[in-house]
Amino acid sequence: MKNGEIYPPYTVGVDLGGTNTELAVVDAVGHIIARDSFPTAVPKRGAENSDSSPVVGDWADELATRINRMIRESGLEERIEGIGIGAPCANAVTGCIEAATDLPWPSPIALANMMESRLGIPVTVSNDANAAAIGEMTYGAAAGLKNFIVLTLGTGVGSGIVCDGHLMTGARGFAGELGHVTFPFADDRLCGCGRHGCLQTVASAKGIRLTAKRLLSDTERQSSLRDIPEKDMSPKVIEQAARNGDPLAAEVYEFTGRCLGLAAAEFAAFTDPEAIILFGGVSKAGDLLLEPMRKAFHDAALHLYRDRVRFLLSGVSDSDAAILGAASLPFIKI
Amino acid sequence: MKNGEIYPPYTVGVDLGGTNTELAVVDAVGHIIARDSFPTAVPKRGAENSDSSPVVGDWADELATRINRMIRESGLEERIEGIGIGAPCANAVTGCIEAATDLPWPSPIALANMMESRLGIPVTVSNDANAAAIGEMTYGAAAGLKNFIVLTLGTGVGSGIVCDGHLMTGARGFAGELGHVTFPFADDRLCGCGRHGCLQTVASAKGIRLTAKRLLSDTERQSSLRDIPEKDMSPKVIEQAARNGDPLAAEVYEFTGRCLGLAAAEFAAFTDPEAIILFGGVSKAGDLLLEPMRKAFHDAALHLYRDRVRFLLSGVSDSDAAILGAASLPFIKI
Repeated sequence: MKNGEIYPPYTVGVDLGGTNTELAVVDAVGHIIARDSFPTAVPKRGAENSDSSPVVGDWADELATRINRMIRESGLEERIEGIGIGAPCANAVTGCIEAATDLPWPSPIALANMMESRLGIPVTVSNDANAAAIGEMTYGAAAGLKNFIVLTLGTGVGSGIVCDGHLMTGARGFAGELGHVTFPFADDRLCGCGRHGCLQTVASAKGIRLTAKRLLSDTERQSSLRDIPEKDMSPKVIEQAARNGDPLAAEVYEFTGRCLGLAAAEFAAFTDPEAIILFGGVSKAGDLLLEPMRKAFHDAALHLYRDRVRFLLSGVSDSDAAILGAASLPFIKI
Repeated sequence: MKNGEIYPPYTVGVDLGGTNTELAVVDAVGHIIARDSFPTAVPKRGAENSDSSPVVGDWADELATRINRMIRESGLEERIEGIGIGAPCANAVTGCIEAATDLPWPSPIALANMMESRLGIPVTVSNDANAAAIGEMTYGAAAGLKNFIVLTLGTGVGSGIVCDGHLMTGARGFAGELGHVTFPFADDRLCGCGRHGCLQTVASAKGIRLTAKRLLSDTERQSSLRDIPEKDMSPKVIEQAARNGDPLAAEVYEFTGRCLGLAAAEFAAFTDPEAIILFGGVSKAGDLLLEPMRKAFHDAALHLYRDRVRFLLSGVSDSDAAILGAASLPFIKI
């Protein structure tokens, strides 16, 4: 704060991805004031040739330099409430990246400490799904809600659970792995975790593809999807076919939505949520998922929860969702 | 506080049951300093004959009189931190009893307000399972833990979930209905809620009896349980038979423990707990449940949770568990 005046808070959000690091200064209602990005694999300092491995300290130096410059150029020195970093496998409890396979450095990485010592501003780190949940609460579909679950439907299925206004982290930061709750409807599907039946095997992009491929292989039904090469069979292509009136493609989403509704009926018994929010690439199918999800939930849920849970789509702008989720992290207490 | 001195806090716990109301003054480590009880169905004031229905206000007056007397006789005036009331269907969020069928008055009952206005001391109400969870955290097996789940195994199956030190209540106070999470192992069992497959249909006293009866009816195996009349087939009788070497009786608990372990493997993905604690009548079987539970959990849980969750029995004295759970309620913030 300058001169004891009260300003609305600003934060810096950082989205650490395997390829690029994106950063932005964000105001309290989710407007991006300034943004920047750079390749995550910063070349080793002083190395002329590129065969030496990148070093995380060089990335941290580069990020600190760019954050400081961005804040200065925005005229917001001393007005930054905190810095939030969303990163794969980042643990909000320890402040570390535990075991990320798609970053150019070895894990664990003491991310929060590393950046706090360079910047002198509090740093909160979290995995993508928890950042998405706080992003929805701060700027999106969960604004004003204290009890909700965000399901991130993408390459995998993750979740961020807010109960009584608090983001659940758990004993070691591993609360909310709802993609790995198992269900009878997926019992014959092997998950990457080595177990069978995880929600992720149905409701991820890969799960959607598998559902389509099984419907194609196990029946002789006509479908425009038969003309699509396997490598092009994305959730988006299947959605488009469904919207063009292909009944088999529609059934893929009908099944996925129904499974999500059955899963939600079990999830409700944990946290009595007001809303369950779908986030991420697969959720773009919107009503194709939400309608069977609502119906299955209504049919399956305990009477206490029936008609009490809203099913919503992410309210955070698609392209900025990761960085806004990160920018919202300083507003929570872990 | 008297004269600004610091005393350790005392609370009053009230266990409101269908037949009797028990009350006690309890110190900060769970010792009962004084206790009292009276019939819940207080006769209508001034009614000479007993055909008029009891009135909840008369019960509240009687309780207030007895609480004040108990505090006064203990020499603890002005040293009571708060009053906790455990009651069937009591909702911690609203302070009301919502729809209890085994109390002599119509619901809803604004229990917290009703007692606060009579006593001038803060009153916290909660259902039995949440009171059990806070009781375990305050005086029992969960002392020092911030992430645990208490499963109450009795007539039904309830639960109290503490995550990050916070008792989860949810949007309307209905968080933690884990007895109504459904599982394939119970898919052919109809629950009192009208749905099939609820954990309660296996892990309650009724569930244990059904498992035994099915093993007896579906096989010709010899068992000492065949000599027990159906009405006497309690979990305790079955436990005793198991301990006396009856293999069929042992299998009843083996199955129940295995189901609890499979359930716990799913529950872990919600809150990343340090411990899962069994509470209530059915949990008296102890190792007969815990050993298969641990094994099934180990085989079924996601690697993140495997070997990270302890399975414990309630650490609160059996006969006083309800009243101590109630007495611990003032220590939480809802």
